[in-house]
Amino acid sequence: MIENKEVKFTPLIQFNEFELIHEWTKNFKQYHPNLLKGIGDDCAVQQISENQVLLTSTDLLVEGVHFDLSYTPPIHLGYKSAMVNFSDIIAMNAMPTSITVSIACSNFHSFELIQQIYQGIQIACDELQVDLIGGDTSSSRKDLIISITVNSIFDKEKIVYRSGAKHADLICVTGDLGAAYAGLQILEREKQVFLQNPNVQPDLNEYDYVIERQLRPRARYDMIRFFNENQLQPSSMIDISDGLSNEINHLSKASKLGAVIYQDKLYSDYQTQKVSELLNIPLTTFMLYGGEDYELIFTISPQKYNEVTKNKDIRIIGYMTEQFSEPMLLQLDESYIPLKPYGYHHFGKS
Amino acid sequence: MIENKEVKFTPLIQFNEFELIHEWTKNFKQYHPNLLKGIGDDCAVQQISENQVLLTSTDLLVEGVHFDLSYTPPIHLGYKSAMVNFSDIIAMNAMPTSITVSIACSNFHSFELIQQIYQGIQIACDELQVDLIGGDTSSSRKDLIISITVNSIFDKEKIVYRSGAKHADLICVTGDLGAAYAGLQILEREKQVFLQNPNVQPDLNEYDYVIERQLRPRARYDMIRFFNENQLQPSSMIDISDGLSNEINHLSKASKLGAVIYQDKLYSDYQTQKVSELLNIPLTTFMLYGGEDYELIFTISPQKYNEVTKNKDIRIIGYMTEQFSEPMLLQLDESYIPLKPYGYHHFGKS
Repeated sequence: MIENKEVKFTPLIQFNEFELIHEWTKNFKQYHPNLLKGIGDDCAVQQISENQVLLTSTDLLVEGVHFDLSYTPPIHLGYKSAMVNFSDIIAMNAMPTSITVSIACSNFHSFELIQQIYQGIQIACDELQVDLIGGDTSSSRKDLIISITVNSIFDKEKIVYRSGAKHADLICVTGDLGAAYAGLQILEREKQVFLQNPNVQPDLNEYDYVIERQLRPRARYDMIRFFNENQLQPSSMIDISDGLSNEINHLSKASKLGAVIYQDKLYSDYQTQKVSELLNIPLTTFMLYGGEDYELIFTISPQKYNEVTKNKDIRIIGYMTEQFSEPMLLQLDESYIPLKPYGYHHFGKS
Repeated sequence: MIENKEVKFTPLIQFNEFELIHEWTKNFKQYHPNLLKGIGDDCAVQQISENQVLLTSTDLLVEGVHFDLSYTPPIHLGYKSAMVNFSDIIAMNAMPTSITVSIACSNFHSFELIQQIYQGIQIACDELQVDLIGGDTSSSRKDLIISITVNSIFDKEKIVYRSGAKHADLICVTGDLGAAYAGLQILEREKQVFLQNPNVQPDLNEYDYVIERQLRPRARYDMIRFFNENQLQPSSMIDISDGLSNEINHLSKASKLGAVIYQDKLYSDYQTQKVSELLNIPLTTFMLYGGEDYELIFTISPQKYNEVTKNKDIRIIGYMTEQFSEPMLLQLDESYIPLKPYGYHHFGKS
């Protein structure tokens, strides 16, 4: 009873996240015909009436793995925890309706700390008019844990999947790339300086933009409104949580097509460029592999070129090709290299 | 930036769970008129069409707080994690439709351990025909964390709230009381024996029933079917997660009525009685304050006496009184004592 009877112990490090999810869930049966999409897109999609669907997405955030309270103001942590979930709904071309929030904390955490996390969640909810409908508060032995599930009740016909891209569709991306990862590098560097000499107060003003992109990302719901106002319907869409290269691989695989991305069309902010120089890491690494930007990548018919380019915060960075193959990057020297799903093979920070 | 600027640090231990949730969430606004019930029942209830509602409930389980892997077989842990969530839906007189499962684990946990947890979840899903629609796998620094959110799409008219009890309604309870808590006492005792002498293999056969009630509780969905087949509609209902006394307090407060419970009508299993004698703890303590039974407490019109008592696993234990007041226990000596919401003031194991 008490004894550990486990026969085999295979370390998790041998697998990537997608292999694990597949292995663990492959034998589950589907009982309800209203389930239009289960595991494998940004959200699950269930039909709830002739014209409406229920979208559901969930995230589990653990202290020391997904966030660091030594440099994350708790109000930003709350805001970000909600926003990254909203971003999953937005990536389906919908708007979130309601969330549940569960928090587990220990006696290392104060009433005020958790209060500020909830305040941040509330700011995000007010911004997108989302109802907090339930949750759970409990104890942990040490680490703070935040679990958020978001629901959306939305028009079925508006929903955009990862799998809808067509041959010759334009690949578009919103905003600038790599800023959140650049911000993380600065924060981690300053943390080390602080740990060595707690009297040094860093001046981070020159990196304020990239730090804000890391600590307080805003999901691109303005784009959902832009699409709606201009009767634009992307053929596929995904948000950038794990880096552009990784997300392009998801779109390509789900849509069973190839993709070409032009390196010279990738756009980053001046501060991201400064961090790249400071740390001597190629700027392309930030733009292709930097996670947590929560920008949108979408594909759309080339006939919509004029309408899409009306929005100056959308850039066309490539196009979908006919055959399913590894997405390719057309480099500045006009040679092609494959875009690898970097970050993909790590069971860890993601 | 890096420095901890927190001014005030109020320890969480000063509050109970309900005060905390209230304080942290009181400023949230409600944006959607379809939200029929937010925080404060077993589930959130959102109207999704003229006749249908969406029920949502969520739970966060943390190793070392909510479960102990030293005596919990992982397949049972998975089963129980799903079942306790299903029980929240069942307590609204509905059946669950879908769940999301998020698991965070560390390198202390093996592939096979998590696989067995998922197998247990699958057994529970197969039993109630529930779809696994999504989830998240990530890392923790040490403890295993399981977060489950369950949805149900169900007939609006069938839904039973905590708040619907009427004056003179019968108070009924399913099954026997205190068994899960008795099982926990035995497991904790055997763990201590094992830690002192790992060569002793305990013989736990004489406590098999109460141990199973602790490790592998089954939500009472059979009662939902019984109600449905007999056109019975409880006026209010709740499941026993935190002990009968606590739950009666919830029903009474939500329904704004008093309640009288007859001590001589409370029923426990023979093994629970044996554990009570063994540990020298009064049996009434197990029956009134023992958590995790996941039995149902419901109220129903006295006119339904004959139909309800057809089911031999339902016992009538009291009735609702006219004025809102503290629920009372009529003891064997015919004196009354108030039923306190025991367990209520602990921020901790719940």
